[in-house]
Order: sequence, then C-alpha cells, then structure tokens
Amino acid sequence: MESNMIYMPIVLALLGLIYMLVKKSWVMKQDAGDGKMKEISDHIYEGALAFLNAEYKLLSIFVVIVSILLTVVSFIVPTTHWLIVIAFIFGAVFSAFAGNIGMKIATKTNVRTTQAARTSLPNALKISFGGGTVMGLGVAGLAVLGLTAFFILFFHYFMGGEWTNTMDMTIVLETLAGFSLGAESIALFARVGGGIYTKAADVGADLVGKVEAGIPEDDPRNPATIADNVGDNVGDVAGMGADLFGSYVATVLAAMVLGNYIIKDMGGNIVNEGFGGIGPVLLPVAIAGAGIIISIIGTMLVKIKSNDAKEAQVMGALNIGNWTSIALVAVSCFALCTYMLPETMKMEFFGEGLIEISAMRVFYATLIGLFVGGVISAVTEYYTGLGKKPILAIVQKSSTGAGTNIIAGLATGMISTFSSVLLFAGAIWASYAFAGFYGVAMAASAMMATTAMQLAIDAFGPIADNAGGIAEMSEQEPIVRERTDILDSVGNTTAATGKGFAIASAALTSLALFAAYVTFTEIDGINIFKAPVLAMLFVGGMVPVVFSALAMNAVGKAAMEMVYEVRRQFKEIPGIMEGTGKPEYDKCVAISTKASLKEMMLPGLLTIGFPLAIAFIPMIFGMDNQAIAEMLGGYMAGVTVSGVLWAIFQNNAGGAWDNAKKSFEAGVEINGEMTYKGSDAHKAAVTGDTVGDPFKDTSGPSMNILIKLTCLIGLVIAPILGGHTSETAVATNEIEVIETKSSSDKVEKQIEVKIDMDGEIANALITITKTENGKTSSETKKLQGTEEEVKAKIEEIKASLK
Amino acid sequence: MESNMIYMPIVLALLGLIYMLVKKSWVMKQDAGDGKMKEISDHIYEGALAFLNAEYKLLSIFVVIVSILLTVVSFIVPTTHWLIVIAFIFGAVFSAFAGNIGMKIATKTNVRTTQAARTSLPNALKISFGGGTVMGLGVAGLAVLGLTAFFILFFHYFMGGEWTNTMDMTIVLETLAGFSLGAESIALFARVGGGIYTKAADVGADLVGKVEAGIPEDDPRNPATIADNVGDNVGDVAGMGADLFGSYVATVLAAMVLGNYIIKDMGGNIVNEGFGGIGPVLLPVAIAGAGIIISIIGTMLVKIKSNDAKEAQVMGALNIGNWTSIALVAVSCFALCTYMLPETMKMEFFGEGLIEISAMRVFYATLIGLFVGGVISAVTEYYTGLGKKPILAIVQKSSTGAGTNIIAGLATGMISTFSSVLLFAGAIWASYAFAGFYGVAMAASAMMATTAMQLAIDAFGPIADNAGGIAEMSEQEPIVRERTDILDSVGNTTAATGKGFAIASAALTSLALFAAYVTFTEIDGINIFKAPVLAMLFVGGMVPVVFSALAMNAVGKAAMEMVYEVRRQFKEIPGIMEGTGKPEYDKCVAISTKASLKEMMLPGLLTIGFPLAIAFIPMIFGMDNQAIAEMLGGYMAGVTVSGVLWAIFQNNAGGAWDNAKKSFEAGVEINGEMTYKGSDAHKAAVTGDTVGDPFKDTSGPSMNILIKLTCLIGLVIAPILGGHTSETAVATNEIEVIETKSSSDKVEKQIEVKIDMDGEIANALITITKTENGKTSSETKKLQGTEEEVKAKIEEIKASLK
Repeated sequence: MESNMIYMPIVLALLGLIYMLVKKSWVMKQDAGDGKMKEISDHIYEGALAFLNAEYKLLSIFVVIVSILLTVVSFIVPTTHWLIVIAFIFGAVFSAFAGNIGMKIATKTNVRTTQAARTSLPNALKISFGGGTVMGLGVAGLAVLGLTAFFILFFHYFMGGEWTNTMDMTIVLETLAGFSLGAESIALFARVGGGIYTKAADVGADLVGKVEAGIPEDDPRNPATIADNVGDNVGDVAGMGADLFGSYVATVLAAMVLGNYIIKDMGGNIVNEGFGGIGPVLLPVAIAGAGIIISIIGTMLVKIKSNDAKEAQVMGALNIGNWTSIALVAVSCFALCTYMLPETMKMEFFGEGLIEISAMRVFYATLIGLFVGGVISAVTEYYTGLGKKPILAIVQKSSTGAGTNIIAGLATGMISTFSSVLLFAGAIWASYAFAGFYGVAMAASAMMATTAMQLAIDAFGPIADNAGGIAEMSEQEPIVRERTDILDSVGNTTAATGKGFAIASAALTSLALFAAYVTFTEIDGINIFKAPVLAMLFVGGMVPVVFSALAMNAVGKAAMEMVYEVRRQFKEIPGIMEGTGKPEYDKCVAISTKASLKEMMLPGLLTIGFPLAIAFIPMIFGMDNQAIAEMLGGYMAGVTVSGVLWAIFQNNAGGAWDNAKKSFEAGVEINGEMTYKGSDAHKAAVTGDTVGDPFKDTSGPSMNILIKLTCLIGLVIAPILGGHTSETAVATNEIEVIETKSSSDKVEKQIEVKIDMDGEIANALITITKTENGKTSSETKKLQGTEEEVKAKIEEIKASLK
Repeated sequence: MESNMIYMPIVLALLGLIYMLVKKSWVMKQDAGDGKMKEISDHIYEGALAFLNAEYKLLSIFVVIVSILLTVVSFIVPTTHWLIVIAFIFGAVFSAFAGNIGMKIATKTNVRTTQAARTSLPNALKISFGGGTVMGLGVAGLAVLGLTAFFILFFHYFMGGEWTNTMDMTIVLETLAGFSLGAESIALFARVGGGIYTKAADVGADLVGKVEAGIPEDDPRNPATIADNVGDNVGDVAGMGADLFGSYVATVLAAMVLGNYIIKDMGGNIVNEGFGGIGPVLLPVAIAGAGIIISIIGTMLVKIKSNDAKEAQVMGALNIGNWTSIALVAVSCFALCTYMLPETMKMEFFGEGLIEISAMRVFYATLIGLFVGGVISAVTEYYTGLGKKPILAIVQKSSTGAGTNIIAGLATGMISTFSSVLLFAGAIWASYAFAGFYGVAMAASAMMATTAMQLAIDAFGPIADNAGGIAEMSEQEPIVRERTDILDSVGNTTAATGKGFAIASAALTSLALFAAYVTFTEIDGINIFKAPVLAMLFVGGMVPVVFSALAMNAVGKAAMEMVYEVRRQFKEIPGIMEGTGKPEYDKCVAISTKASLKEMMLPGLLTIGFPLAIAFIPMIFGMDNQAIAEMLGGYMAGVTVSGVLWAIFQNNAGGAWDNAKKSFEAGVEINGEMTYKGSDAHKAAVTGDTVGDPFKDTSGPSMNILIKLTCLIGLVIAPILGGHTSETAVATNEIEVIETKSSSDKVEKQIEVKIDMDGEIANALITITKTENGKTSSETKKLQGTEEEVKAKIEEIKASLK
C-alpha cells in the first residue's frame, strides 16, 4: 500500500478527468436552442477559437525559443539536466490544453444555459455550473496528472525509483521545476494577453456602442459585441484557468522541494519512516489528488430547487459546495498528515537551529491555508460587494462628480490592502511557526486543493454572463434575461472572490517558491542590510507598478484600435444601425486578438528579463554567485510584496467601481433622493468603472503571474547560482551526534558538516553544538582546501570531540 | 584649528541666520501696496497665523505626551538618557519655529511681489525669491544650529568633550536622535495636516465656486478663497519646510552614527588621526555648515534683467543658482573629505569583512548624492513638465473622456517609478560600494547640503501663486497677473521638482537611518528568509498604501465640510454674489484648520502606532529582543520601499494631471484640432486634476514623513532592543591583530571579540581570522557564562594563537 502511494494521485487525477468527460458529454447533450441563438453562440465559439489559435502560434514560437535556451543551459550547467526541457514543454502543453478545454466548454455551455433559462432557473444553474465543473476538473486533473507523472518518471530516472539521498531528490525536483515553468509561461500569455483582449473589446464596444451610438450593451448591431463576449471567455475562463493551473503546480512543487529539505534536516534518510522515505515530498501531491475527488463531491452539492430563487439562494448553493469541500480537505489533510509523515520531524529554523516538529503541526499549517482561502473571499466581498459600506460610500461620492468617485474607489482599493495583508502576514507567521517554510508551502497546498471547486464557481460567472448576452442578442423574452441576470449577478460576486482566491494562492505560492529558492541556492538567507540586496528589493518593488502601467496602456491602445474599426463599420456598412446590414464581427475579433498578443510582449519581457538580467549581468562582471543569489532573492521579495499589494489594490478598486456603477441599476439613495441610471451621479460612476475595468481584469490579475513567474524563474536559475556549479560539484550536509549522556547532567555533542566544492577547492562549514548542564554553546569553523585535506581535518575534529 | 572644527558649523549656521534676518528686513521694507491688496494680504496672513496657532496648541499637547513617555522610558531603560527628552522638545520647537519663520515671511512677501509686479518683473522675482531665501536659510540655519549645539552639549556631558570610546559616542548620538524625532514629529503635523488643509480648501473652493456658482478662481466673492491661499502657504511652504528640516537633521544624524561605526571598525580610537578622533562623525555636520554659506552664494545668483523675460529666463536664473550651489558643494565635499577623514579607513562590509577605504571614496559617494539630487529633478520634470511627451499623451487621452484621462495619468505616475527607482537603487549600490552605509549616508548628506537653496526655489512658487491670487482679488491690471503668472508657472515646475528632491532626500535619509538602526540594535542584519521578518516586510509595504488612502479620504471629508459652509454663506449672506455682501473668510479658514488637524490623527496614529506595536507587543509575549529588532527592521524596509514607490507614483501622477489640465489654457492640438478651456476634453482634464490634487499635495508628500518617521522611531527604540538593555550592560567589540609576518609568506592572525551582557550572563562572539599563503580561514566561537568566565576563556584563546 505505502509504496504504491506514489501512484495514488495519478489515479485520482484520472478519475477526475473521467468525471470531467462524463460531465462534458452531459452538457453537450443539452438543448443548444434555435437558429439565432445558435448562430451567435457559434460566432463566440469561433472567435474564441481564433484567439486560441493565434495564441498557440505565438506561444509555440515562445516555447521553442525557451526550450533552445534551456537546452543550452542544460549543456553548460552540469546540474541542470536536459530533461528539464521535456518537462517545460509538457508543462506548457498541459496548461494550454487545460485552457483549451475550458474555453471550448464555456463557449458551448453559454447558449445551453440561455436555452435552459427559457424554462427553468435550476436547470440554467445546473448547466452553467456544469460547464464550470468541466473547466475546474480539467485544470486540476491535468495539473496533478502531469506533475505526478513527471515526478515518478524523474524519480525512476535519477534515483531508480528508490530513495538514495537528498542531493538526487534535489535534482529530481529541479528538473520537475521545468514543468511548472512551462505552465506559468502559458499563464503569462493567457492571463496578460487575455486580460488585454477582454478589456480592449469591452472598452471598445462600450465607447462607440453605448456612448457614441447610444445602443445598449450586447446589441447585435455593434460589431464589437462578439469580441466582447469572446473576451469574457478569454480573460475570465482561460486566463483564470491558466493562472490557477500555474499556482497549483508551483505550490505543490515548492512544497515537495521543502519536504525534501526536511529529509535533509533529519539526516538525509528516513526510509524507515515509511513511504519509501519520501513521505514529506509525497504529501502535497497526495493532498492535491484528494482535493480532486473532494471537489467532485463539492460540485455535486451545488443545486437549487425553486424556479423563483433569487441571488441569495444561488449564492447559498455555491457556498454549500465550497464550504463542504474546504471542510473535507481539512479532514483529508488530517488523515494524510498523520498517515504519511513521520510522527516527529526535525526542521532547521533560521537562527534557532533544528527544532522537532510533530506531524500534527503540519496539519495545523494546512488549516491556516484553508482559513486564508475562506477568509480572503469574505474580505474581498466586503470591499467589493453590492450593498456593503465601501460601495455605498463610493455611490455617495458619485453625486459630486467623477473626480470624487475616482478618489473614493482608489481609496477603497488601497484601504482593502490592510486586512488582506494582515491576513497574509499572520498566515505566513503562523504556518511558519507551526512547521517552518514547509508549513507555509503546505498551507498553500491545502488551500489550492479545492482549486477544481474554486474554478467551477469562477468559470460559471462568465458562462452566465455570456448566456445573458446571447439572450439579449437573440431577443428572448425578458424572463430569460432576468434568470440569466440572477446567475450573472452571483457570477460577478464569485468573480471578485475568485480574484481574492487567486491572489492569495499566488502570494502563498510565491512565498513557498521563495523558500524553495533559498534552499536550492544554499545561501544563508537574504540579508537586506547588504546594499545590493536592498537595492534589488527596491527594483523588485518597482516592477509590478511599471508592469501594471504597461498593461493598462496596452488596454488603452488596443481599445482605440477597436474604436476606429467599429466607427469604420458604422460608417461604411449600409443599414447596420437599422439591423439590415450585417456587422463584420470577425474583424473586431481579429483586432482584439492581434492587439492583445502584441501588447503583452513588453510586460512579458519585463517579467522575464529583469530576473535574468539580475542573475547574469553581475555574473559576467565576475560577481560572487552567492552574492548574486542573495540579490536575486531580494528582487523576488520586492516583486512579491509589491505585487501582492498592487494586485489587491487594483482588483478591489476595480471591483468596487464596477458594483458602485451597478448599484444605480436598482436605484440608490443619495442625500435622501432616489437616483437611477442616466443620472449625473450614474455617469460619474460609469467613468469610475472605465478606470476600474483594466484594473480588475487586466493589470490586477496579471500581478499573480508576475510574482509567480518571477519566483519560478528564480527557482530555475537557482541551481546555476547554487554552490554546486562546477563539474566536480559535490555538496554534502551531514549531522552527527557524537555523544549523548542522558543522565540528569545531560551532555550532548553534535557536529554538522557542510561541504561545497568549488572546482578543486572544497569549502567546509562545520558547526559543533555542545549542550552541558542545560547550557548550549556552538562553534562554527570554516575550512578551505582540497577535498582530501578538508575531509581529513574534519575526521580530526570529530575524533577530538569524542 | 582642528579641535575648533566642532564649532565651525555653529558659526556658519549663525552666519546663515544673520543673513536671513538681513534679507527678511529687506523684504519687509518693500512696498506692500495699497488698501485692497493689503487687506487681502492681511486676511491671508491672519489665516495662516490662525492655522499655526491651532497647530501649535495641538502639537504642544503631543509634545507633552511624548515627552512624558520618553521620560518614563528613560527611567526604565538604562541606556536611554533623560536628556533625550530635552533634545526632543528642542527638535520640535526648532522645527516649529522654522515653519513659523517661513509662513510669516511667505505671507508678507506675496503682496510685496504683487506690488513689484505692477512695475517690474525682475523686481517681482527678486522679492518673491528673497522670501524663499529667508525660508530656506531659516530652516537650514536652525537645523544645523540645533543639531550641532546639542551634539556639542552631549559630547561634553557624556564624554567630557574628549574622545573616550565608541560606546559613549553611541550614547551621545542615541540621545541626539531625540532632536531628530522632535523635528520629524512636527513635520508629521505640518506636512500631513498642511496637505489636508491646502487641498480641502482648494477642492472646497473650486467645487462650489467654479463648478456650482461659476465664478473664477481666486474671486473675492468666494468665501473659501482666503482659505485656499492660506493653504498654499500651509502646505507648500510650512509643510515642505518641516519636511526638509526633518530630512536634513535625520540625514546628518544618521551619517554621524555611521561615522562612529567606522571608528569602531577601526579599533575604537583614531585620536591620532586628528579632529579629536571624531573626524568621520563631524564630517556630515561640517558639510551641512558649508552648505549654508554655499546656498547664500547660490541665491545671490538668481536674478533676471529684462522686464520682458519669459518662463525660460526665470527658470534659467533659478537653474544657475541651483547648479552653482551643487557644484560648490561638490568642491567643499572634496576639501572636507580629504581634510577631515583619515587617509584610509576600515569599514565592515557585510559578508566581506573589514575593507580598507580611502577618504576619496567617501568623496565619490557624496558626488553620487549630488548627482541623484540633480537627476531626480530632471526625471520629475520629464514626467510632469508642460509640453513633455507624457503630458501630451494625457492631453490626447482627455478627448475620449475622464476615464481615459484618469487611466493615462495613473499610468504616467506608475511608469515614472521606473527611472526614479533605478536611480535610487543605483545610488544605493554605488555609494555603498564606495564607502559602505557611511557612503550612503554621506551621499544623502551632500544632497541635503543644498537644502537652503532648494527651499528658496521651492518656497518661491507658492509666494508667486499667492501674489497672482492677490492681483486677481484686488483687480489689478492684466499685466500684473501676467507677470505673476510667469513666476507662478515656473513655481509649478519647481514645486514638482522640489517634490522629487524631497522624496529623494526622504529615501536616502531613511536608508541611512535604517543602517544606523542596524548598528544601534547590533543585529547581524535583517534576514527576510525568516518568516516573521518577511511577514513584517509585507505589513510595512501595506502601511503607505493605507496611509495614502486615509489621507485622501481626509481631504474628501474636510472638503465636504468646506462645501457646505460656502453653500451656506452663498445662501445666507445677502448681496454676496453682487460683491456688496462680505463673505466670512475666517469661518472657512477655521473649518480648514480644524478639519485638517482632526483628520491627520488617524494616519498619524498609524505611522506611530505600528512600529511601537511591532516592537512592544512581541516583547510582552517574551520574544527575543534581537528577533524583534530584525522584525522591526523588516517593517522599516517594507515601509521605505513601498513608501518611496507610492510617493513617486502619487506625486508624478498628480503633477502630470495638473499640467495636462493647464495645457488647455494655451490650447492644445487633439486629433488635428485646437482645443481650449471649456471643451469636453478640458472638462475631462479637470476631473483628472481633481483626483491628482490630493495625490500630489496630500498623500504623495506625506509618504516622506511616513518613511522617515518610521525609521526614526525605529532608531529611538533601537537601544531598547539592542544587546545592552540590562543594568549591568557592557558591550565591547575589539579587534586585535595577534601576529603579522610580512615576508612573502604572509601570515596574519586577527581576533575580533564582541561581548554583550544579558543581565549576569555574558555572550561572547569571537571571530578568528587567519591568513596564510594567501588563503584565509576564519573561525567563529560563541561563549556564554559569567563575565569573568568568558573573559578568562578569551585570554586563553588569545594565548593559544600566539
């Protein structure tokens, strides 16, 4: 049983994928409606495919270039194995495939949801959420399948399928990092490109359609309306899916790396503790596998009965599914932690030395992760939810004009960082206190275990949004739109909370990667009292700000192209406004597609270029590798801290403006007067929403990718910067207990030896710890010389201790 | 000569103050114009005094509370001497007095400038810049006078006026930190309170006056117009003055602390190197003193001849003065560095050990500071200057509405962080590479040496602005307003570049304080790979964001109160619109005053409360002091990095919106069409400016205070967290060279001993470095026991080395 545990996640992932296929065929069997509806839906489907194809072309080129670079690196750097290239390619392909599944099902589910909404709200929910479920399970299933399969492959390739030592396992995991890098690279295209696409289409459609021509949203006469609906799928479905796919893989990977570090801290071999000696490495994958089955159970619970249900009931149904799956993950974490981990482990805590940790403490850390995942959604909902205090305040401020509306929205987004950051900081602290950085990574892993469920909830929103658009465009009875509006409104809330979940996952993932980075580079930590490190902390802090600006400008540029095209069509196509001329939807789709992929280049370059420049430029100038590693660590920390702040700020400000605008639809009371759509205050709120759109759908969510990709690039570079760079690289780290008297006068002597080879020269760091009469003294020695010299000297020291 | 060097800065400061008095009496002798002008000017003067008095009342209470707290601390913590309370009070009083001088002269100079502008532009410049000079010299003179006087006092009190050891000097400087804390506390009130005041009045006046009643800016019928003009003085004169006063003092103090650290690194005694053995400590004060005289020379060069001069000539005159003083500071830095410093010094570089540094390298570091001071202004001007590319882009975006204008402005502010942060990061790196953190602090000190000149340039802007307002209100000939507008327009540019200088100074000051903090607490650095430190880095990063939001909201609230009052007056005072009824200016002034001081409480509390909570809450729970010190360091770094980013972002976005709006006054070409004031695009630009106003005048500049005050509070707490907390506190750090053979086979043995007393227990850290045949090996030992035990053991080790 125990030795087969390694295959368990694959089985669970396959089960998840099978369930996905079943669900998919069920959705596809539903009635896709009549002529007009089908026609519009086909337009959207084709538009989405057009984007995917264009994206795939671009990213094939990208994958080829990076693969070549990685191959070159793997030939130059002996510790980087060429298999990383294979892992990278598969990571990219799996991620793209997951996005493909999501986009296809979403664009097929929308029209079926509209059709179902003609008769039944419960059925409409069932279908739209079913589409979301397919998406969620596709992402989670492929992530676990790919990661586990490659882990098993490398485990057999590098270690013969049996525990050898932590060094070998490090190489396994370093190679596995390629899979994660591939996944996150695709996320860059999907999230950033998708974010630009969706807002360029949206803003372009609104500016000419609503503002200039005075026709309503989703009006079929507007040439950009299909692009707008495609955008919902590109940004919110494929972008979000790729984002969480990347987080999922990276989190589990980082937890595995830190699990291996525990084995190292425990002496390098815990085969006698079961699970082939890799329990701590396997645990995060096992939890991810369990999470897939749990998510399936969770999705089954999402249903409503009454055809007259309102937002609250729909939200309630989603909440039941969500909270049940969170609770079940907690239970499975308890079971797996106690089952798979040694009862007590030793972990190195910086500045505190080795500390004994029980398996239960790892479980507590996972609880913290689940807590953060739940609470961050509540925090996000408070700051962006309809009828909540912050939104009402923005509505009030709209009465004095766009300026005050904007200030209020910005302030809301900024203030919302307070509780979120305190939550993250508390979670980092607590999960670290429980189980070191392994605890932080396990907290993230537990939170991510419900990814399939989260994505189902999240993807259901844009499907409902599209369903409403199709209802509008195909001129259905008002009741149909009312029903889809209920789903859409809930979808807007889940979109905001989903963004909260995504940023929480990105933040914890980055921290876990950051910790893994430090262990890979074998530096003593990242000391910001060294000026170059501090300087890089500054630079890292700046990058998310500039990235956001570039993303926002990209939306502006792409939207302007859209505006010109729509204006041209309005002018040149006869009868377009009367509904007799047919707009050229595909031209608008093509513009969005092309512009979004072009405009994401610069921010993408910024993301990838900076860490590479920081690592390799000083290397050319002969700077010490360890110093570079510390600088790069400072940069990573800067990007993460600033990126998380700007993500929360932009997401929540954008969400708040959006719902402040929406508040006017039902009417709001301002200074004692009911105010509706079309009022000056509403116009001010619309201006706020225009600013908020790129905030919440482009630059804000892109931050997730930026911080994760930065930390992943760091992790992939890490072995190059680490101690073991030269051909004869050898690194050992052993801890030996020399003497223990367990009388009342306890005497303990312990020696820890670390040897790094730098070419012919061995650098040894020897720490001798003596505990006598309750007093502990430690002594550190550094030795340098040939390997033999150093080893002889160490034996001498050991002998002298006895 | 050498031994009297300590008095030199006092003499120079007094010379500066005397020149200030001469200049002041010259300005006061100028013609103050006729009845109406005088009346308006008196209103502004009285309004300013009303604010000052209200502020003084509030800050007296604050000073008393903090003094009591500090006294309590000084009785509990043995290393904190009660004299810190005296230093604190004087720091506060000096800063307040400097602000007082500035406000008074500015409100007296404005009307004289208007009067001069009736006949001559050169005279108007001479008078307005004369007022600025008084302000600048008042601030710089009082700062140097106070700091030097207290240093001499404490030097005599604690050390008998002669070098004893670095520990004693540390106590001198720790006590001197009180002066800096006092100065910065006042800056909090002046900058944050002033920032809220000026924008509440401005926005309030505009919203009702311009928008609702349709009367022009500065119209005497608007009851808020006096408050608006007072606001210019409160925010831009007194606020900026207090800000730079605080930076000036803190920078010099931090450089002194790090200078003392050099003496420590050199063995603790360099009396044989001259200057009573305190050359490195005295150098920053000497440069500051020289800077005063240089600034006087610089101000003398600012003049124009032609009555038909335009902005370019006026700007040119200011630039000549500015660049000359920067060049002269460079010369004096060279002279003083070579004169006062030992030819070579030893400095501890983290991770690299002791490194020999020549005096010239300190000079190079100062050059970097001067370079940053000059370039940051150019960068700021590029992003906010009229006719520059970013501004033109915002103007273009205004044509598609307020939404796109806002996005463009935000993006400009965000992108502007790129070059500024790279500049800072490069400066940190380079100045550190030249001379360690002493180099960073000296770079800051050199930059700040031109403070008097910078302030003169800066204060001249609001004076000219006021002069224009008085011209308008007293219904002068158009030519008068044209002349003041030329000065005002240049003033707007210098206001933006002045903000760049202020944030650069705040950034470098904070870094210097940060470094001083680490030396005071005696921690090994700040390792962000420890989770609690990383968590605090996050929390620190969040605080500037929340602070900015609070400041912006404060403006909103205060402005609304103003709006209600103006509306009330328009309704209740008969004949006010016809000019027959007299508006109650004082009521508006009172509202601004009260609201601004009330609303600054919460952000102030945030600034002061967080570092105290981080230091003392874990202490209550028994956490290790050194761990707390590291956490607090992480917090300080987070605040600094994030604060600098948000300062640049907000200042430049605000400045860009402002000038985009101003561009419409002369007319701009949008899509081939000339567009002017009153167009839709202009209205969109006005909305952008409304958002930008609190950005650039309230929350943006407040960041400077936030980051400096945070680091200063850290510095004042540092001794409590440091090793020497108990009654029998003893800390020694000695380096002894045991053996040196200078044959070709060089053998060097060196032993470094650090002892910290924790109650009865001595903790010793012993580092033995051996260099033999070019190979260096080092060994570190930790010892714990009673003082005698440890010292005996150390002697044993030393003997064994010989």
